Amino acid sequence: MPDPRELMAEMYLQFAEELADAAGEAIRPRFRSELQVDRKGDGSPVTQADRAAETAIRELIAGQFPLHGVIGEEYGNERADAEWVWVVDPIDGTGAFVSGLPTFGTLIALLHDGTPLLGLLDQPILNDRWAGVSYPGVIRRTTHNSHPVHTSSTTDLETSIGFATTPDMFSGDAREAWNSLSSSLERVRYGADCYAYGLLASGFVDIVCEASLKSWDYLALAPIVEGAGGRMTDWDGQTLTVESEDRVLASATQRLHRAALERLTCANG
Amino acid sequence: MPDPRELMAEMYLQFAEELADAAGEAIRPRFRSELQVDRKGDGSPVTQADRAAETAIRELIAGQFPLHGVIGEEYGNERADAEWVWVVDPIDGTGAFVSGLPTFGTLIALLHDGTPLLGLLDQPILNDRWAGVSYPGVIRRTTHNSHPVHTSSTTDLETSIGFATTPDMFSGDAREAWNSLSSSLERVRYGADCYAYGLLASGFVDIVCEASLKSWDYLALAPIVEGAGGRMTDWDGQTLTVESEDRVLASATQRLHRAALERLTCANG
Repeated sequence: MPDPRELMAEMYLQFAEELADAAGEAIRPRFRSELQVDRKGDGSPVTQADRAAETAIRELIAGQFPLHGVIGEEYGNERADAEWVWVVDPIDGTGAFVSGLPTFGTLIALLHDGTPLLGLLDQPILNDRWAGVSYPGVIRRTTHNSHPVHTSSTTDLETSIGFATTPDMFSGDAREAWNSLSSSLERVRYGADCYAYGLLASGFVDIVCEASLKSWDYLALAPIVEGAGGRMTDWDGQTLTVESEDRVLASATQRLHRAALERLTCANG
Repeated sequence: MPDPRELMAEMYLQFAEELADAAGEAIRPRFRSELQVDRKGDGSPVTQADRAAETAIRELIAGQFPLHGVIGEEYGNERADAEWVWVVDPIDGTGAFVSGLPTFGTLIALLHDGTPLLGLLDQPILNDRWAGVSYPGVIRRTTHNSHPVHTSSTTDLETSIGFATTPDMFSGDAREAWNSLSSSLERVRYGADCYAYGLLASGFVDIVCEASLKSWDYLALAPIVEGAGGRMTDWDGQTLTVESEDRVLASATQRLHRAALERLTCANG
């Protein structure tokens, strides 16, 4: 008889795919079209596409699982202390979106008691979708467009390709830590937003290290990275929860992750 | 009666599209497949896809225009002092290519007596193609997937979105100049390689500023930017030729270009 936790994970994953489908329908016609870019309180850009995608997702959740909580980038928290909470970033990488660059993504996580059970990263222009499940007692797995994927087997920093969205996300001691880590890698690239974590799950990238994130930026990505065999934690090596700090590290293997954490930690004395 | 220079530009543009088609056929099956990454003398990565794409392009040119010169990233110069010279970068952004990120591009320029007449930027995974013509006596024009495009009307640095592939391309006085320019912009993004110039031609990006380039990195991009109404020169404001320095600036408008050049120049004392 199938494990009930497995059945539950499968059911919620299918629903997360419906949410991503709805977000994609709201985003696709607005990409590279005339659009107004507004500024939020923190100066970050937001468009009608962000709002329409999050609204579509919230309506589906309210209809299907009215007791579930929702944490979203654009419309705040509803029942954030519920047993099951959806965490949504309708467009991660709005800067890329408004520049016409298809490396932004829709991020959807489902938390159980504050810990991610599954995560979904959808790029609606390239039709790239990563879906990951990683939870105690549930089989870890990640797919890219429905095909199982696995991280690379890289274990050494010197042969690793690393990504971060921009060096400007690191300041103060985080900048020192990033400089220490990035200088030990074979090559560093900037600019891929959440898409870099999908490439890591698929084995094309070995490390993604970022700072100044919000919970909706990383909670969906941890199950995708860990379901594919990698490791994703905060810079202290702790499992990511809704309460985590704003600094995350994702690595292709456990050994590479330990080596990278050491570089980050030593730089901070 | 049509101007013969116009007819010639049109004929060569059609041939450049055939070259890009051939390169795309060589590149597409090798994207995100198992591939060996070799290192060139300067440490930059090269793959079988780079080599196969440039070989395909060279064969077509030799068959159709045997007296034309060719300058290519992978296989060097042939008749580089000919009246007509094709300048080819089969994969600009090989680093992105090997990371599975579809922001690399095939770049093809045709020079007449050392000055670009036309340029083509092809992204074979996203099926994005920009083609530009800009030459004395020939109507300037740029298309994106056969549709005419125009740069944005932005004239002020403070409202401009700027791109560079990576801050690591600027060192010494170039780093100071970049810091001066980038700090005056509304927002800066990294990582788009040649694709950023296409986004500029289409009006989504206002400035692209780069350094440490080779001639095959920029010669195809100048006609695309200028054909769309923008301006692209070296950091001294000089027209780009095969003899130019390794630093280029592309801007949506003449006025924005002058303001950006001033920031770059003043930083260098």
